Amino acid sequence: MKRIAIDMDDVVADAQARFGEWYIRDYAIEFTPEQLYSARIEDLIKPEHNGCIREYVFHDDFFKDLPVIAGAKEVIADLHKQYEIFFTTAAMEFPNSLLPKLAWLGEHFPYITWKNIVFCGDKSIINADYMIDDNVRNFNGFIGKGILFTAAHNHKTEWDTRVNNWQEVRAMLL
Amino acid sequence: MKRIAIDMDDVVADAQARFGEWYIRDYAIEFTPEQLYSARIEDLIKPEHNGCIREYVFHDDFFKDLPVIAGAKEVIADLHKQYEIFFTTAAMEFPNSLLPKLAWLGEHFPYITWKNIVFCGDKSIINADYMIDDNVRNFNGFIGKGILFTAAHNHKTEWDTRVNNWQEVRAMLL
Repeated sequence: MKRIAIDMDDVVADAQARFGEWYIRDYAIEFTPEQLYSARIEDLIKPEHNGCIREYVFHDDFFKDLPVIAGAKEVIADLHKQYEIFFTTAAMEFPNSLLPKLAWLGEHFPYITWKNIVFCGDKSIINADYMIDDNVRNFNGFIGKGILFTAAHNHKTEWDTRVNNWQEVRAMLL
Repeated sequence: MKRIAIDMDDVVADAQARFGEWYIRDYAIEFTPEQLYSARIEDLIKPEHNGCIREYVFHDDFFKDLPVIAGAKEVIADLHKQYEIFFTTAAMEFPNSLLPKLAWLGEHFPYITWKNIVFCGDKSIINADYMIDDNVRNFNGFIGKGILFTAAHNHKTEWDTRVNNWQEVRAMLL
């Protein structure tokens, strides 16, 4: 059975939505979804807010109750019938994210047990056939095939295999 | 540069010592080091204490301030000059261990950054040349060479490559 390593933030968990939500809360400036998903949060906000926004990810609540990216639940449930699924997230950079991420996976993907969850840093440590990730740097040294998942920050990134949403993952792998 | 994946409990962090320490605390029954490191804790204690002992690992403090296994610091510092070192621990089974383990590594191995720390479950997900581990089940499906590190519970386990202490790791890999 082939194995797929699936990233969390901006692939299954909508961290960009949290940035938008907190930015409204703190500065009363709202983005349309089109704006929010068109560019990095740093490129959308007023420059003087940059320092504050960068602190968001170190806050205990940032990773709690993130929305699930559209289609992720349905497509991963179907992938799970034909592939070994591992969630592989570079969570070590944000120790505050470890327990919220684990709780989040338990809530939304309860059939993926602790055995198939990986919190890591450098993803070249991952042994899988495919990796679905929104950062091409995570494909450096990866022994399988990297599939770039479109996110606000990677529209201009060049990579040979890209999917724009979970329906395109389904079309590619099922 | 070849890569070594190193387990934590009973390889670099002395979890068996913690069992012994808490068993004295709770039941006033002490083991000699020879006893403690000769057999699984379950085989040493009175059978009626078994249920309590099994709860120890779910306690918030179990993984805090564990002693470092003799020789681990010195030998890993030397290995680090010739190999990529990753700590790879099946921490996901014990969510209470995540933050204590990260703090412990930061204290005792500060030169190993978050990029080279992996909290996982099934270790067949690890892409490395060598894995030093006290559980042969972690070598199932591992693509590199498994090196069994002697621990109280594995004296009778059969495996082709075994090291009894960190000096033997040095002799094998340096």
